[in-house]
Amino acid sequence: MRIRDILKDVRDSKISVEDAEKLLSLYAIEHVRDLAKLDINREVRRGVPEVIYAENKSLKDIKAIAARVLKKNNYVIISRIRDGDLKKVADSLKDCKVKKGKYSNTILAYKEEFDDKYGPIGIVTAGTSDIKVAEEAEFMLEAMNCKVIKGYDVGVAGIHRLFPILEQVMKEGADAVIVVAGMEGALASVIAALIDIPVIGVPTSIGYGYGADGYGALASMLQSCSLGLAVINIDNGIGAGAFAGLIARRVAKFKA
Amino acid sequence: MRIRDILKDVRDSKISVEDAEKLLSLYAIEHVRDLAKLDINREVRRGVPEVIYAENKSLKDIKAIAARVLKKNNYVIISRIRDGDLKKVADSLKDCKVKKGKYSNTILAYKEEFDDKYGPIGIVTAGTSDIKVAEEAEFMLEAMNCKVIKGYDVGVAGIHRLFPILEQVMKEGADAVIVVAGMEGALASVIAALIDIPVIGVPTSIGYGYGADGYGALASMLQSCSLGLAVINIDNGIGAGAFAGLIARRVAKFKA
Amino acid sequence: MRIRDILKDVRDSKISVEDAEKLLSLYAIEHVRDLAKLDINREVRRGVPEVIYAENKSLKDIKAIAARVLKKNNYVIISRIRDGDLKKVADSLKDCKVKKGKYSNTILAYKEEFDDKYGPIGIVTAGTSDIKVAEEAEFMLEAMNCKVIKGYDVGVAGIHRLFPILEQVMKEGADAVIVVAGMEGALASVIAALIDIPVIGVPTSIGYGYGADGYGALASMLQSCSLGLAVINIDNGIGAGAFAGLIARRVAKFKA
Amino acid sequence: MRIRDILKDVRDSKISVEDAEKLLSLYAIEHVRDLAKLDINREVRRGVPEVIYAENKSLKDIKAIAARVLKKNNYVIISRIRDGDLKKVADSLKDCKVKKGKYSNTILAYKEEFDDKYGPIGIVTAGTSDIKVAEEAEFMLEAMNCKVIKGYDVGVAGIHRLFPILEQVMKEGADAVIVVAGMEGALASVIAALIDIPVIGVPTSIGYGYGADGYGALASMLQSCSLGLAVINIDNGIGAGAFAGLIARRVAKFKA
Amino acid sequence: MRIRDILKDVRDSKISVEDAEKLLSLYAIEHVRDLAKLDINREVRRGVPEVIYAENKSLKDIKAIAARVLKKNNYVIISRIRDGDLKKVADSLKDCKVKKGKYSNTILAYKEEFDDKYGPIGIVTAGTSDIKVAEEAEFMLEAMNCKVIKGYDVGVAGIHRLFPILEQVMKEGADAVIVVAGMEGALASVIAALIDIPVIGVPTSIGYGYGADGYGALASMLQSCSLGLAVINIDNGIGAGAFAGLIARRVAKFKA
Amino acid sequence: MRIRDILKDVRDSKISVEDAEKLLSLYAIEHVRDLAKLDINREVRRGVPEVIYAENKSLKDIKAIAARVLKKNNYVIISRIRDGDLKKVADSLKDCKVKKGKYSNTILAYKEEFDDKYGPIGIVTAGTSDIKVAEEAEFMLEAMNCKVIKGYDVGVAGIHRLFPILEQVMKEGADAVIVVAGMEGALASVIAALIDIPVIGVPTSIGYGYGADGYGALASMLQSCSLGLAVINIDNGIGAGAFAGLIARRVAKFKA
Amino acid sequence: MRIRDILKDVRDSKISVEDAEKLLSLYAIEHVRDLAKLDINREVRRGVPEVIYAENKSLKDIKAIAARVLKKNNYVIISRIRDGDLKKVADSLKDCKVKKGKYSNTILAYKEEFDDKYGPIGIVTAGTSDIKVAEEAEFMLEAMNCKVIKGYDVGVAGIHRLFPILEQVMKEGADAVIVVAGMEGALASVIAALIDIPVIGVPTSIGYGYGADGYGALASMLQSCSLGLAVINIDNGIGAGAFAGLIARRVAKFKA
Amino acid sequence: MRIRDILKDVRDSKISVEDAEKLLSLYAIEHVRDLAKLDINREVRRGVPEVIYAENKSLKDIKAIAARVLKKNNYVIISRIRDGDLKKVADSLKDCKVKKGKYSNTILAYKEEFDDKYGPIGIVTAGTSDIKVAEEAEFMLEAMNCKVIKGYDVGVAGIHRLFPILEQVMKEGADAVIVVAGMEGALASVIAALIDIPVIGVPTSIGYGYGADGYGALASMLQSCSLGLAVINIDNGIGAGAFAGLIARRVAKFKA
Repeated sequence: MRIRDILKDVRDSKISVEDAEKLLSLYAIEHVRDLAKLDINREVRRGVPEVIYAENKSLKDIKAIAARVLKKNNYVIISRIRDGDLKKVADSLKDCKVKKGKYSNTILAYKEEFDDKYGPIGIVTAGTSDIKVAEEAEFMLEAMNCKVIKGYDVGVAGIHRLFPILEQVMKEGADAVIVVAGMEGALASVIAALIDIPVIGVPTSIGYGYGADGYGALASMLQSCSLGLAVINIDNGIGAGAFAGLIARRVAKFKA
Repeated sequence: MRIRDILKDVRDSKISVEDAEKLLSLYAIEHVRDLAKLDINREVRRGVPEVIYAENKSLKDIKAIAARVLKKNNYVIISRIRDGDLKKVADSLKDCKVKKGKYSNTILAYKEEFDDKYGPIGIVTAGTSDIKVAEEAEFMLEAMNCKVIKGYDVGVAGIHRLFPILEQVMKEGADAVIVVAGMEGALASVIAALIDIPVIGVPTSIGYGYGADGYGALASMLQSCSLGLAVINIDNGIGAGAFAGLIARRVAKFKA
Repeated sequence: MRIRDILKDVRDSKISVEDAEKLLSLYAIEHVRDLAKLDINREVRRGVPEVIYAENKSLKDIKAIAARVLKKNNYVIISRIRDGDLKKVADSLKDCKVKKGKYSNTILAYKEEFDDKYGPIGIVTAGTSDIKVAEEAEFMLEAMNCKVIKGYDVGVAGIHRLFPILEQVMKEGADAVIVVAGMEGALASVIAALIDIPVIGVPTSIGYGYGADGYGALASMLQSCSLGLAVINIDNGIGAGAFAGLIARRVAKFKA
Repeated sequence: MRIRDILKDVRDSKISVEDAEKLLSLYAIEHVRDLAKLDINREVRRGVPEVIYAENKSLKDIKAIAARVLKKNNYVIISRIRDGDLKKVADSLKDCKVKKGKYSNTILAYKEEFDDKYGPIGIVTAGTSDIKVAEEAEFMLEAMNCKVIKGYDVGVAGIHRLFPILEQVMKEGADAVIVVAGMEGALASVIAALIDIPVIGVPTSIGYGYGADGYGALASMLQSCSLGLAVINIDNGIGAGAFAGLIARRVAKFKA
Repeated sequence: MRIRDILKDVRDSKISVEDAEKLLSLYAIEHVRDLAKLDINREVRRGVPEVIYAENKSLKDIKAIAARVLKKNNYVIISRIRDGDLKKVADSLKDCKVKKGKYSNTILAYKEEFDDKYGPIGIVTAGTSDIKVAEEAEFMLEAMNCKVIKGYDVGVAGIHRLFPILEQVMKEGADAVIVVAGMEGALASVIAALIDIPVIGVPTSIGYGYGADGYGALASMLQSCSLGLAVINIDNGIGAGAFAGLIARRVAKFKA
Repeated sequence: MRIRDILKDVRDSKISVEDAEKLLSLYAIEHVRDLAKLDINREVRRGVPEVIYAENKSLKDIKAIAARVLKKNNYVIISRIRDGDLKKVADSLKDCKVKKGKYSNTILAYKEEFDDKYGPIGIVTAGTSDIKVAEEAEFMLEAMNCKVIKGYDVGVAGIHRLFPILEQVMKEGADAVIVVAGMEGALASVIAALIDIPVIGVPTSIGYGYGADGYGALASMLQSCSLGLAVINIDNGIGAGAFAGLIARRVAKFKA
Repeated sequence: MRIRDILKDVRDSKISVEDAEKLLSLYAIEHVRDLAKLDINREVRRGVPEVIYAENKSLKDIKAIAARVLKKNNYVIISRIRDGDLKKVADSLKDCKVKKGKYSNTILAYKEEFDDKYGPIGIVTAGTSDIKVAEEAEFMLEAMNCKVIKGYDVGVAGIHRLFPILEQVMKEGADAVIVVAGMEGALASVIAALIDIPVIGVPTSIGYGYGADGYGALASMLQSCSLGLAVINIDNGIGAGAFAGLIARRVAKFKA
Repeated sequence: MRIRDILKDVRDSKISVEDAEKLLSLYAIEHVRDLAKLDINREVRRGVPEVIYAENKSLKDIKAIAARVLKKNNYVIISRIRDGDLKKVADSLKDCKVKKGKYSNTILAYKEEFDDKYGPIGIVTAGTSDIKVAEEAEFMLEAMNCKVIKGYDVGVAGIHRLFPILEQVMKEGADAVIVVAGMEGALASVIAALIDIPVIGVPTSIGYGYGADGYGALASMLQSCSLGLAVINIDNGIGAGAFAGLIARRVAKFKA
């Protein structure tokens, strides 16, 4: 290990301080590796749980990576498991509790229970088809110890269903609201126009024809004239949960 | 004129009925020209005023075409006149009254006053920047003898401004509502979710970034989960006015 | 229930009128919930039947939602049922009549027969492949008590087939015509150039290569130089039927 | 005013509580107008300053709207003023202090000084060309009483310039970081991978060729594998500032 | 039949020639139906064989339409039959000879043998994967009595393979060359730069990544700086064959 | 000159025939330069006039290239000259006749008069704005000694104006028809459905909104269900003229 | 064989040198065929192994082409074999060694062992899902006798994993680095900013939502502000390997 | 300076080696700043000259940055200077020689003459309009001490002009060829098919219609079936020069 050697040489006056400094500078690229070591416990440092994106991975790889992550962390999230593999992956996870998605092929595996000491974060979906994306955000928030307030199937076409959930969100003092919406995605704009906490829009790939696959909703959210709305990529419930969780953690630092 | 000749020959027994029929069939393509003749007074038949789309035409051509149309019709609309040419075109129109656009480079020239016996049609815009498109629809509707109820600058960000105008639209018994909106275009969806008459959405090329130039609003309107919404192309106020006018005329047939 | 309490307090002079008004204003957000209650019978208010878009829903959910809608309404439309599930869904619907699509996976379930007192509405398709989209519009119009005049497989390549159906549409006094066309979608333009009632264009996802999946037809219809044409999203027969039905209902108000 | 009248009638026992409730329910649509009244002081309720988007407005309109906003609020932001009009707009604003953009055509007009009691929020730009977008965010944050930590011209090509600013951001305890970047937009990903507070990405329309006009940066940010990153539309510094300001305000509630 | 009746009335002097002419003009729309009748033998008039595009049709429909066409014409082409149905369709065709595609799911059914008296037309493909599109053109040309000169698998990567086939094309006096090419589609440009007869480019949906699905080849062909090149839509071998066949027929009129 | 040397050596028996052949093969790449020499009189070989595409060239360069081409050829076409430079370029051309475009910035300079012995070719435009593209085709055809039959401003909205020109085209025995159309571009489909000679579609960049800049017309033409239609790139009148001219020349070979 | 005949005639003084030269020039197009003959051993001349792109080819064709190539060359690469066919293809290859892909459906068949005398070339992937594209490059480089230094699963989200591999790449004196990355593709920019040898970016079709299918990574790489980065099409590992191999060969010319 | 302090403390035995190592690890983020210091002379380390992209910078900023770069480096390249500013920028550069672009607004300022000891690199353009992009590459290569072989205006339409330049490129032993081409961009494919050194394609934004602005050429190059071709973004001559220069430098290491 080079740093230690250099330091020893300094201690033993084998090289001068100036030379040691120079050596350290010259070998800076290696030192960054030490930074990497700090990163071993990335979950702690960044506050964002590790996620295994299973879609393009073999069943064997998924199991191996999950086992490895669970060795060093309390939990792991596995998203986008292929249809039919959900149970296989769940069964392969040992020495931990496993929560399987009801709407999405997501797994949250954990060793110790979570408390929901952060948040809450609101999650609102426009339609029932959007719930599978919302569920990814739920799992992420749970793993980040955040309480979730859910209001699903609250679209613009039935705009009245929206108000009770917004009222609850405001009363319980949510730190942010995730709005999951496909088709025209107008819900995110409408909510951001009504409340004064950050709104995180997640377009979903629901709908057909022009603007399908979430592109209409994405455009609608990015174009929104309602200030206070930021956007996560289409169908990316994991990303929305992580982002909202970071807000909740930031707020929580000062709550106690 | 061939038809007459054939008919004369039939009358004079120069050719048989069967041969005459055959001739007429063979020359059917020419007969279609007779259909064309019926079309001379197209404004009357189709109920849609003639519009001169000036953008790609020379000043000289615009004047000439306008004069020609005014010779056979009571009025003409000239849209998208180049900046600076509005007054020049207006001044060139003789023996008629001229109404110039306040927000758009549109002219409505007419010989006899319109009554506003059809409609009314509601026109709602999301922002002030959308008014120039709305004005095109206004002129079109005026030329089609339709009354207009205007509610401008009624966006989703300030969604409350919407209700008074919708109430007026419903109370006065509008036949349809034109919704003109740029950026996320959510207004058309929201209105279509609230009222029970046809809503005609016109996306406008307001906004910047992803979904700019009206594409976000277009996608949002086409994707709308609110039934009862049809869409006209971006910035096409003329088209929206014409479509709404046809609905109003259809309704009016049975009103008296 | 807060409104009632406030009102009681006003009646009992426990609070002043001014205070009551203030309270009501402050709690306006809750009052909107009352608006929602009015919405229970949405089918009546908006005149547009409830549609269950089945594509992203489980068979179990589809059945449950359909049962719930049929409890409060006379009928329900279920569209885009997955291949193979059409019969299963149909068989699960109790105490109602069920009409299954011949070309599309659509179901119209109803308790009392419809009369076809509104309309008629013309539906024209360019090719045989467009009929499944047209059928969605048919079912929607039937549920809105509209008579339908059908002219299928009437494309530009065989433009002569078009005239008989247009003649029938005009003679029977249709309130609007739905034109369903894929590939180049020219049929909508051609029809809108020939008749004087609103034309509703529905591009279909027929065709391959550049402009495939309905984008060529969509562009063609939005670009149309024929005034009097509005557009519904690609393959959205339901939306076209709903829009046309609203026109027919509007006209019908004055027909008797 | 109908609510007051109903209330008076209740007080005077002219109508029963039940009837009054029914009336209020039936007229719910009007009550929403009362909600609108609450909205007069929207800046207070939502915590987001009013912004006049000047690009498509006449100089006269901009001045009039600015004057009106300043009558009821402490300040107003005017963005995207046309080149050459910045001074004209600034000079027209009376009885307030005016801060003009150095890089962007933005104005912040205010009556009372701001304190920077919220935040801080970090703003990092990849290149010098991105600063004009960052400046919009700065103005927005200033108007929301947020302190700003700036680190401009810190791109991926010279990635080492990044670390000092990130260190400062973390040390001063920023609530969020706005990353403004054009071309490949990689900076937002890199930062989100390194820190544990929310990162708000703003793509800018810098660059040419494929992915120009901010689309490459937008795709890059939405595709980011770094969790903790949300995106605002291309060039929308105002939106980024508003969103970050809402996070800072939320955190601040618990800071004291 | 109205025309005949009018003619009879003219003959019998029941109506005047002028009235008859007026009637015929008024009913011109019906006369167009007579034009339609001429169209029964459309293959003769337009010189382009009828094609059944099978992709979106049921097996039953395909058989029925094919039988109907074969009743009035000598042949029919059925293109894009679904995988596995080729034999079924072929076997169902009675009283005619059937030629099945080797590379594509195309069928040419005919009653009398073709001579190859027109043309020849050259067909060149860049790769082996393009042959299935070329085969559609071959069948079309065969049905139009055109001789075909084939040069398959002649791409730009091995540009030398091109010269022998071009030499043959020129020597045998081809009337036009169809160039079928996917990926970068450069072959069409190269050939059009070398020969002096019309070149018809058909992009194919071969390739992956940016410009895949034929879009790169389409752009390349439309952008070609070689004059003398026109383009058919991606994968549309039928269209290319028909277009080339019309050129050959036009030339043949003067050959004898 | 190497070929000559090899040949001399063969003649003088300095090298064997086999060796000479080998040398020629090995140096084949140089021989291609001889092919190039044949190409000096490219206009003659390919039958397509040389065109100087002026848009991105300096005035000085345009003049120089034009002079050089006129030295070896009878004529030259200069297209897309910048506004204001048309006269300057025309005046600089010495010892030749110059024909300037009335609608487009095109010049046809020639030394000897053309006869119009080939063709005729029909050119049809949908609107007046399309004429400038048609004029490019006219000039090209004139330079290729083709007669032109023009029918301008014949759109689908006024479809009856189409028949007289089609009748003329068929009667005069045109070899092909160029159809120039913007917006929805339906005219090309309609014409290709009615006539039995090749139709060459040229989309133009007329129109706004979705499908603008010629993309809607391009999609419409490529998607056409009318067989017998090939497409040239948007606004490329030169290309259409060249392609039609090649057809006319091919036909003419057999006309005498 | 015409060249030989001409040469013989020259030798025998049957034709003059000048005439022979003229003949050779006139028949230059045939001479190019001789160029083609040189091309028989294309692998030798261009230094790039022949690749059979199997995706659109039948199993039978793949086997036949592979056998043919192996007859004249030492090896062949078969890429994108359909799932399930890998073993079938491998088993059919006789008289050669066969290396099958572990991650991709690629086969490298060869008769004599390769040495890895060229390079080395670094290959770095951002994620595990990118390895299948990297493997194509590996096989290509192996066939070009290049040594490969692999560093897989080195993404921006865990940027520290990058430094060890870069250090190795620099120490071993790699001639170029291939960077394979999906999603935001930032890795290529980051690496190109850090090292001074050519970087070849290969976007992969990993990711979903906006910028999916490799388009985000492609834009990111093309937009990169890091100089020294060139791009290969999405998923085209073969192309990247070939390009890097050519660099290595060029360098190797001067290494010995 | 913290490293020095830690080292001193180690030397003075104030802290143990273990503690020092820990401190260094903990403060690793700061050490990266030392890496940055190494980067001061980036031109030396990366071998790529610094480029000032002037398009979005003020004249004042351009001058200031240029002066700063010239203080530490021998030269600087300034690209995309706004029209009219070229001379102003050039005149402001003191104590150095200035080379101004003839076709592009590029400046190469340098203090000591370059030798052209590396390379050569071939640069080939398809048309004259592409030369301004090629010139950027030339300047870059000159600053990297590379010799350049130029062959401009060598398009596919006149493919014979290509061979002499390719022959020269191969004879002089070029390390790579840059191919600059707009419109269909076929030239890059053709060249890559003919030679055995790396080909670097640069699409240019020449052309109009579908595939304009360089997108057709980009697609064509990325889709190329010729192996050995990598692509730089549209119009990015600087990037192409830098990439080719790195190849030349790599080769040069082993040339002596």
